Amino acid sequence: MDLNLLGANAKQAARLLNKLGVSDKNKGLVAVADALKDTNNIRRIIEANCIDIKNAVNNNMKDSLIDRLSLNESRIIAMADGIMEIVALEDPVGEVTSMKVRPNGLNIGCKRVPLGVVGIIYESRPNVTADAFGLCFKTGNAVILRGGSDAINSNTIIVNIIREALKSVDLPEDSVLLITDTSREVAAEFMRLNRYVDVLIPRGGAGLIKKVVETATIPVIETGTGNCHIYVDAEADIDMAADIVYNAKTQRLGVCNTCESLLIHKDILSSALPVIADRLRQKNIELRGDDAVFALLDNIVSATEEDWGTEYLDAIISIKTVNDIDEAIDHINTYNTGHSEAIVTKNYDNAMKFLNEVDAAAVYVNASTRFTDGNEFGFGAEIGISTQKLHARGPMGLNALTTTKYIIFGNGQIRP
Amino acid sequence: MDLNLLGANAKQAARLLNKLGVSDKNKGLVAVADALKDTNNIRRIIEANCIDIKNAVNNNMKDSLIDRLSLNESRIIAMADGIMEIVALEDPVGEVTSMKVRPNGLNIGCKRVPLGVVGIIYESRPNVTADAFGLCFKTGNAVILRGGSDAINSNTIIVNIIREALKSVDLPEDSVLLITDTSREVAAEFMRLNRYVDVLIPRGGAGLIKKVVETATIPVIETGTGNCHIYVDAEADIDMAADIVYNAKTQRLGVCNTCESLLIHKDILSSALPVIADRLRQKNIELRGDDAVFALLDNIVSATEEDWGTEYLDAIISIKTVNDIDEAIDHINTYNTGHSEAIVTKNYDNAMKFLNEVDAAAVYVNASTRFTDGNEFGFGAEIGISTQKLHARGPMGLNALTTTKYIIFGNGQIRP
Repeated sequence: MDLNLLGANAKQAARLLNKLGVSDKNKGLVAVADALKDTNNIRRIIEANCIDIKNAVNNNMKDSLIDRLSLNESRIIAMADGIMEIVALEDPVGEVTSMKVRPNGLNIGCKRVPLGVVGIIYESRPNVTADAFGLCFKTGNAVILRGGSDAINSNTIIVNIIREALKSVDLPEDSVLLITDTSREVAAEFMRLNRYVDVLIPRGGAGLIKKVVETATIPVIETGTGNCHIYVDAEADIDMAADIVYNAKTQRLGVCNTCESLLIHKDILSSALPVIADRLRQKNIELRGDDAVFALLDNIVSATEEDWGTEYLDAIISIKTVNDIDEAIDHINTYNTGHSEAIVTKNYDNAMKFLNEVDAAAVYVNASTRFTDGNEFGFGAEIGISTQKLHARGPMGLNALTTTKYIIFGNGQIRP
Repeated sequence: MDLNLLGANAKQAARLLNKLGVSDKNKGLVAVADALKDTNNIRRIIEANCIDIKNAVNNNMKDSLIDRLSLNESRIIAMADGIMEIVALEDPVGEVTSMKVRPNGLNIGCKRVPLGVVGIIYESRPNVTADAFGLCFKTGNAVILRGGSDAINSNTIIVNIIREALKSVDLPEDSVLLITDTSREVAAEFMRLNRYVDVLIPRGGAGLIKKVVETATIPVIETGTGNCHIYVDAEADIDMAADIVYNAKTQRLGVCNTCESLLIHKDILSSALPVIADRLRQKNIELRGDDAVFALLDNIVSATEEDWGTEYLDAIISIKTVNDIDEAIDHINTYNTGHSEAIVTKNYDNAMKFLNEVDAAAVYVNASTRFTDGNEFGFGAEIGISTQKLHARGPMGLNALTTTKYIIFGNGQIRP
């Protein structure tokens, strides 16, 4: 697999995409959505997907993972609908966010432009293939995809269908390229393809993201892991706290904005904890508490140091008692992953202190951490949730797939 | 040298800095500026600098580099004045750049906050020490500095004086920390200190920046190298073109926004080239041209493929003839480093095409590339010029040293 050739082709396509207006880009997206809904293409995708599933069964893949890998007609239609949702979004490219005149008469403007070539490294879910293409194409970026080996047959046919659709409306098919050699060596080489790739976005579990951060020389946007806390302040409304914790822990267990750890002020512990614990136990959540929590409840596991730093992604929550809000903030800033953190309180000063001092992408007062999501934030679509501080932090909409360039209008200015 | 301890101390200081308002931060900067102007401290700095210079002479360092390393009273006063200029700048931290209400009543705001801990890796010039501290401190960031071994004595005393000054006004002295072990091993370890350092900014030559990009796992903002072009269009004003090329090439030879390569449309070559060449030769600039250029001028060196990709930082310019603006843009997008590019033209369509299609941090119509600079752009100060596309592109002012966090005001919202 010649990655340099692949990179050069992507770069070439990116230059063409940079010249397109929004109607041409939308025309391409509509063609792709139509192609994904075409009966014959649906059959091609399902056939390829069957091979992936057969291989997965032979490799004893867990049922939950096989479910994530599986495509059927309705899931394929959902992929096409996702592309049509991107058509409806405003194109951020071309906006001049500021333009100022300097004393020497230079007009200096800051213009939003595509990143160029985006690399996406992801795991089993083949729907990411269409989704990542759609977001990158709308923002005028070419995309090089490296999916997991488990989904290679599904990904290959989906990419082929997208390329055919683009070609059918005279748009550059190299706007999307798939790395079909899924070996680790090729992945490592891809992560160092700085000459052609402008940014790398890993989408997947903590292991994948760690590997990319350690290996890549291309700038990376880290997404994902969330060890999210809810702090129930001494002045919290206990019913509201129970509702929020119940929602944030149990509404969906395996996602990054789920609450993994509960902090309770000591003054409210004996009144709030039984109420919250009852709610959580309705959904069979395992509670792991510190000594004070352990003393108040039956059937509780003792939390260890390891629990405070663990993103369970499972029906487990750790619970710690704190002496004051400062201890809560310190604990969060020590153990969190910079994702989403919430306080439940009726006290104004504590709400503001928590908002100011907790270091995370999204900090909530009196709301569930589950809202950290591109759709919930009103961005319409999301390429991931950034947990790093450069470029984009929190849910990343289309803007996160753009950069800026300064455009300067002169009439002969030279520097004195 | 225990980098983990250093990192933990910096993180702790960053949390304290995050709570400070702008008057406290300015109080610290004024104390530092005063301390740098103190007669006794000036003596301490000059004594330490003498040791560095003596070592440099013994190591046969080039005179130009020894000049960059040297400090005297007026250069130290200039460092203090630089800090006072930062005092005068507006603090970007705390600004809420947008706040919207969602249909469920959540108020979601986007707030500008410090990055946290910034790492700066730089080469010989000890004035970067005070400058980098000032910019980071103003934006509420702690900074860990790793300067070159050549300047270790100067850097150590400057950092000590800054720390003493901060302590004297009850501000955290660990706001600035210096890595005193200048071995490569410790530098490599520093570049992987993700647990404590939020961003790494290398300031120096292409070799240093390449090393950091290849080694670091911390997110890096690449700064610096500039293979900048000026394209003289068929419809250029020849006198304006000559003024701009002369300024962009000769006003300062060794900096990143200097013009290194000249492209001339074939239709204007015979009239424009002699005028421009005469001007450049007044400053003894060596001209390296393609065949058409070679045929028109005496005393010209033949340009090779290597010339097109070279940032000379010297009294040399490469000159290429192009058949049309598309060839000019293609050439630039192939060989440039994404820094600054200019067109000289009276043609509206060509001006707009060049602005749209050239991929660089700053693209000029009818002005010198030498303007790509934080002061010239009106930012007041500059931590460097980013040539990458993530986070910040072009001259980086105080905003580039901040990130954002979402602050969400609820009243009990849970996700349905």
